[in-house]
Amino acid sequence: MPTGYNGKILRVNLTTGVISEDTPPEIVYRMYMGGSALSSYFLLKEQKPGVDPLGPENKLLFMSSVISGAPLPGLTRYTVAARSPLTGAFGEAEAGGFFGPELKMAGFDGVIVEGRAAKPVYLWIKDGKAEIRDASRIWGKDTGEAERLIREELGDNRIRVAQCGPAGEKLVRYACVVNELKHANGRTGMGAVMGSKNLRAVAARGTTRLSFADPEKVREIGKKVLEILPTSVLAQNLKKFGTPMFVMPLNNSGILPTRNFQKGQFEGAEAICGEKMTDTILVKSEGCYACAVQCKRAVKVEGKYNATPEYGGPEYETVASLGSYCGIDNLAAIAQGNEMCNRYGLDTISVGVCIAFAMELVEKGILTRKDTDEIDLRFGNPDAMLAMIGKIARREGFGNLLAEGVQIAAQKIGKGAEKYAMHIKGQELPMHDPRGKQGLTLSYATSPTGADHIEAPHDTSFLTDGPALKAAKPAGVLEPVSALEMGPQKVRLFTHTQAIWNAFNSLGVCNFAAAPYTAFPLVSLAEAVEAITGWNTSLYELMELGERTVTLARMFNIREGLSSKDDYLPDRLYESLEAGTPREKKFTREDFAKILRLYYEAMGWDPQTGVPTQGRLSFLGLDWLIPKK
Amino acid sequence: MPTGYNGKILRVNLTTGVISEDTPPEIVYRMYMGGSALSSYFLLKEQKPGVDPLGPENKLLFMSSVISGAPLPGLTRYTVAARSPLTGAFGEAEAGGFFGPELKMAGFDGVIVEGRAAKPVYLWIKDGKAEIRDASRIWGKDTGEAERLIREELGDNRIRVAQCGPAGEKLVRYACVVNELKHANGRTGMGAVMGSKNLRAVAARGTTRLSFADPEKVREIGKKVLEILPTSVLAQNLKKFGTPMFVMPLNNSGILPTRNFQKGQFEGAEAICGEKMTDTILVKSEGCYACAVQCKRAVKVEGKYNATPEYGGPEYETVASLGSYCGIDNLAAIAQGNEMCNRYGLDTISVGVCIAFAMELVEKGILTRKDTDEIDLRFGNPDAMLAMIGKIARREGFGNLLAEGVQIAAQKIGKGAEKYAMHIKGQELPMHDPRGKQGLTLSYATSPTGADHIEAPHDTSFLTDGPALKAAKPAGVLEPVSALEMGPQKVRLFTHTQAIWNAFNSLGVCNFAAAPYTAFPLVSLAEAVEAITGWNTSLYELMELGERTVTLARMFNIREGLSSKDDYLPDRLYESLEAGTPREKKFTREDFAKILRLYYEAMGWDPQTGVPTQGRLSFLGLDWLIPKK
Repeated sequence: MPTGYNGKILRVNLTTGVISEDTPPEIVYRMYMGGSALSSYFLLKEQKPGVDPLGPENKLLFMSSVISGAPLPGLTRYTVAARSPLTGAFGEAEAGGFFGPELKMAGFDGVIVEGRAAKPVYLWIKDGKAEIRDASRIWGKDTGEAERLIREELGDNRIRVAQCGPAGEKLVRYACVVNELKHANGRTGMGAVMGSKNLRAVAARGTTRLSFADPEKVREIGKKVLEILPTSVLAQNLKKFGTPMFVMPLNNSGILPTRNFQKGQFEGAEAICGEKMTDTILVKSEGCYACAVQCKRAVKVEGKYNATPEYGGPEYETVASLGSYCGIDNLAAIAQGNEMCNRYGLDTISVGVCIAFAMELVEKGILTRKDTDEIDLRFGNPDAMLAMIGKIARREGFGNLLAEGVQIAAQKIGKGAEKYAMHIKGQELPMHDPRGKQGLTLSYATSPTGADHIEAPHDTSFLTDGPALKAAKPAGVLEPVSALEMGPQKVRLFTHTQAIWNAFNSLGVCNFAAAPYTAFPLVSLAEAVEAITGWNTSLYELMELGERTVTLARMFNIREGLSSKDDYLPDRLYESLEAGTPREKKFTREDFAKILRLYYEAMGWDPQTGVPTQGRLSFLGLDWLIPKK
Repeated sequence: MPTGYNGKILRVNLTTGVISEDTPPEIVYRMYMGGSALSSYFLLKEQKPGVDPLGPENKLLFMSSVISGAPLPGLTRYTVAARSPLTGAFGEAEAGGFFGPELKMAGFDGVIVEGRAAKPVYLWIKDGKAEIRDASRIWGKDTGEAERLIREELGDNRIRVAQCGPAGEKLVRYACVVNELKHANGRTGMGAVMGSKNLRAVAARGTTRLSFADPEKVREIGKKVLEILPTSVLAQNLKKFGTPMFVMPLNNSGILPTRNFQKGQFEGAEAICGEKMTDTILVKSEGCYACAVQCKRAVKVEGKYNATPEYGGPEYETVASLGSYCGIDNLAAIAQGNEMCNRYGLDTISVGVCIAFAMELVEKGILTRKDTDEIDLRFGNPDAMLAMIGKIARREGFGNLLAEGVQIAAQKIGKGAEKYAMHIKGQELPMHDPRGKQGLTLSYATSPTGADHIEAPHDTSFLTDGPALKAAKPAGVLEPVSALEMGPQKVRLFTHTQAIWNAFNSLGVCNFAAAPYTAFPLVSLAEAVEAITGWNTSLYELMELGERTVTLARMFNIREGLSSKDDYLPDRLYESLEAGTPREKKFTREDFAKILRLYYEAMGWDPQTGVPTQGRLSFLGLDWLIPKK
């Protein structure tokens, strides 16, 4: 088998217009592989601490991985990263679709964007060449129109476009990056960073066939995975109902976030669930590059509300954030809200949390109708929700305040509003209630990007010796752990599954395609890395990559001034749920401090400060991050 | 593939004569697998701290592993463990040969021996049944005679016998356990523990065919390994010259321990090296169960000195300890010394270190000829060396003092003798000088069993991107590291290779048959565990087993009162070597303190005390070791 991996990183300075190529040594690819880890590697190596997230000194990275573009299901995600304008911490979000593989086929493992263009531009990358082009014509246009204009201008309908949308242009702090109009690098405001650089889009087209160290083995793994897929109940349900399949189970367990985390059950859950979507507005199931799962939705709505299939359809997070979380049971309105977010380039989770926050402030009498531009911000009002999405994206009136995110908005509002601002490190909470899956407590509190639901798999999967546990065993997850357990066993489960998912975040592996959830066995994933790159590798190396990914991001945050004080839970999550609380006994701040310390220790971090020790940095090959005396 | 692993542990109480069987749950086998880890698991679970190592409360364990007995090269070693009479710490030593697989085929993964027999006995295990038998007839006999008598008494020449020899009966603190007269569980005095129980031997015979979850896959792996073997230069040299092949390279590098670590080059090296042995006294190359490497020696010497092939031949450690280390260049005498140690059941390393210690004391005028029973203990005197082996084994005169080990002997002698006692935690140093392979500094100082050369592979292997490095890459060892480097990169190398070798110590894998050295690829080893047990496992699990193995032993030692003070180097190792010193700059106590702290941190231990944190115990699934409040 030939060994060795070569890759190129495109470097674009928008201030100077200079475009160049980096060819990192193979060891850099092997240690960091792509995505999250390779991004934080470059940020830590190249960027000085404390830069303005929306200033020209913040670097913006688009990172594929060493395995991206291989014709295997679930390996298609890519990362956008920078210092986050939402949190001031490590900003990073992954998206599926086709952009990552296309970038690889266009000749690059990643793009590092520096500086700020004097006027709106987009970046055009084709077959190893790159060009900065004028974007005046598309500035201000919604994503669909912008994509159409770019393809028209370049004369190729197969160009893949990742763009920030009008919300990014307006520097909405949770503006996302969206590719193919429907796959979002959703979180941490990477769209705002793009907008701040006057970079509206990155367009890529590659006609180069990727070569692999052992193409026969790649085919063999693909065949094996495709044989396993039909045996996965989860994969089948994902195809049928998409990620909104989780609405009813979560509601039944009493942990479907409802009305700004006031409740865990929503009386309108059945009206917005995945089954209902399939029965009513679904046009077809879609998928990402080379994936057979087809969990993506394309929906169509006409009438009072409207949604067109080209913008896809709402994922679970969106159904919950614009639905139960805002008390809204109108699926058509949710579908329209989803489309609006994709048109504007807004993160649906943060949008929903911001709007529900405002709704609760109105309910509690902290805000009046006058404060909210006369919009009737009641829980359950779909028109108010839709109106606010537009106002936020355009930074109009009250929308301008919510465009800052709940943390800043609450500070500006005062009057005790902070109590209702559901965020950690400034990032709005995702649609999973840690009170019923306690592992999320650690996941939310310690995630370097702020509250995040894909820092580790949800611990409900490990209640029994079922398929998830079986699939995770090669990674050392050997025994069932209750979702309500919050002691050493949970720390063991969390650290191990966190390593798996963080390896995914660097490799660009989909959390639904690979273990613990469905069809791509972990050991086969290691074999795939070997067959693609030619490296003599193993799952051990991938697990270490996972820990390295977590540690790099934490080191970035420490450099930016974050500390253990930023590993916390919002007050509300210490309260009992009004409905359907599954928590057996009260979870106190002391309980949290205990588990946090155990987690720090498990990671080889200082038990008090949560700073990775010099020895553990050495273990991970990150001794270049040990502060020089 | 069928899953599940069942195994039985034989429990023998010699005080009461009660014999019983344990059937640990599968999770115990999966977490601990065998050997070192499974032994410390039982000791920590069952044995109270502080028992007299030579008293009836000390339990003695014979531990095979879940993969032992599979027809694959290099998986044949088994462990004998107990609290050590030499160190007071975790006592554990592995041996190859045929005993481990035989025990498995006789129906047991391990034997836990408790109590003390009123009179000499041996244990007879056949096909799932066990019996305590009278050993009066063999008590006091040398190993060859004892083995012959046992086989004769039981009427089966294929019985495998592991025994402590007369030195164990006499409670020599470094008495070993020897099987087939030539394979020794050499270190930490396990033979003395056996002797203290009046247990002279364990005889085993199994006619049961072992079954494997996926026998076809086991065959396939075996075939693959046998294809790789002939391509390994090391494996070929091991067959030709045995482990004494290392004499000349070490001498050439100036780190062949000579005259009690006074020098690193021996003028008589060529006369005792592996090539010389092959040219002169070698009768044949032999091997362990199912192994094709055949690195074991069988030698024959007649004349002034004598050695017979049935006792094998000296390994590298023995050639050095009885040779260069005592300044002796007579290979025939070394061969006789080796046979005497195997007949008496003495650890050749500790014997040589004790004798050379006495030789230096004579040289320095601390001991006189009168003190040494008129034996002419000069460096270079083979007859004095051979005489002392006999006196030590029989605890005669001056031999009775050296039978206590250099630590106790030096304390009793006083007059500054401690300066010349080359031990750590009470165990004599092996035949490798850390001054030329600095990784051994950590290996010797922190090994839970006291100074030990197989705590981790020697870092000289990782000087270049050669075969050792290539083989270790799946375990995260990615870059060449100089043997003289003593910073973060060495900590990374050491912790990773330590995990590999400690996994071997639990699985019973030979350090020469598997990576980093020769033919059994690490990932194939994980596949072998899967094929044999039916577990969906990976190299990740084996690496974690390695860390768990190290941690369990450390927890045992902490319980026995050891602390970071016991992680040290003898003073002499801070001095420059008189000849051939390869160390570039002086290695100071401050340098050692720094690297030790980095190592503690890398392991997730308290940086000051070296105690594993509660969080890291949780990570490893060892939270049952967290002290109860």
